[in-house]
Amino acid sequence: MFARNGIGNTSIRAIAADAGVDSALVHHYFGTKEKLFTAAINVSFDPAQILVPLTTVPAAELGRTLPSLILPLWDSEVGAGMVATLRSAITGDDITMFRSFLRDVVVHHLAARVDEPAGTGVLRAEFAATQVLGVVMARHILRLEPMASLPVEQIVDTIAPTLQRYFTGELPGY
Amino acid sequence: MFARNGIGNTSIRAIAADAGVDSALVHHYFGTKEKLFTAAINVSFDPAQILVPLTTVPAAELGRTLPSLILPLWDSEVGAGMVATLRSAITGDDITMFRSFLRDVVVHHLAARVDEPAGTGVLRAEFAATQVLGVVMARHILRLEPMASLPVEQIVDTIAPTLQRYFTGELPGY
Repeated sequence: MFARNGIGNTSIRAIAADAGVDSALVHHYFGTKEKLFTAAINVSFDPAQILVPLTTVPAAELGRTLPSLILPLWDSEVGAGMVATLRSAITGDDITMFRSFLRDVVVHHLAARVDEPAGTGVLRAEFAATQVLGVVMARHILRLEPMASLPVEQIVDTIAPTLQRYFTGELPGY
Repeated sequence: MFARNGIGNTSIRAIAADAGVDSALVHHYFGTKEKLFTAAINVSFDPAQILVPLTTVPAAELGRTLPSLILPLWDSEVGAGMVATLRSAITGDDITMFRSFLRDVVVHHLAARVDEPAGTGVLRAEFAATQVLGVVMARHILRLEPMASLPVEQIVDTIAPTLQRYFTGELPGY
């Protein structure tokens, strides 16, 4: 259902109905819809670990907070599963699901924080997503050196001003 | 040979020898090694279209020149073949070739332009590559809206300061 309809258009209630169980049961075993999603793609981490800080730090710190939370995750044990998922997402059938995860979870949560002037939040969040995605690709898919072996802190220091400008700086066209 | 040894370690002379022909014949039909490489991956454009401007514009204009040259290419007719190549490059066997193209052609040419202080050029070029790669992924592989439908000029305006900073600005850790 996530792949077919996207995460935003899929409810736990609908998943439970499709599985012929009570939705309380799904909530009990999987918690949030985002947690159920990561379980469905075999990535065992709770997106709340990332989403909660992102929705609480001041907007002026988002540029540093986002890569500080996301990049270590890719370097961790969980990361191997994420690399496999990203690779298959890019290739084919899972692309709708990956797009939905980026749009309905990551971009959606960030956009609300940086929607200034009104209507720019989604694009701001997407520009930030392109920079993080590019670094993840270079490090974990292409394994481009010296990028792949750089300490996370050095990458955070380098891309944080980029992300902060996308989030709260001048946005050409607006 | 490109896939096995990388572009940098493969000469037209070696390719010609392997094919049992005179290397002058290969030069006659394919021109440069970079052109032979794009022909080998079924992308019909001459990298010199991009590499020549990148090696001649002032370094202070690279941040704008790079995306102005590369992004329209992905939107062009040639782009469809490039998207297919990128997708298969990410998936599996062609990854060595794609990594070699990025490292031995793109990063190699850019690094020489921005190697200040000495030794930082490759990393500067790689950071720029991550931002461009992320935009190409979002537009042409993930087709994330509104990013995918944005005019190229608006994307260039937005990411040019990022790329320029990576090329000639302060680089954390150096």
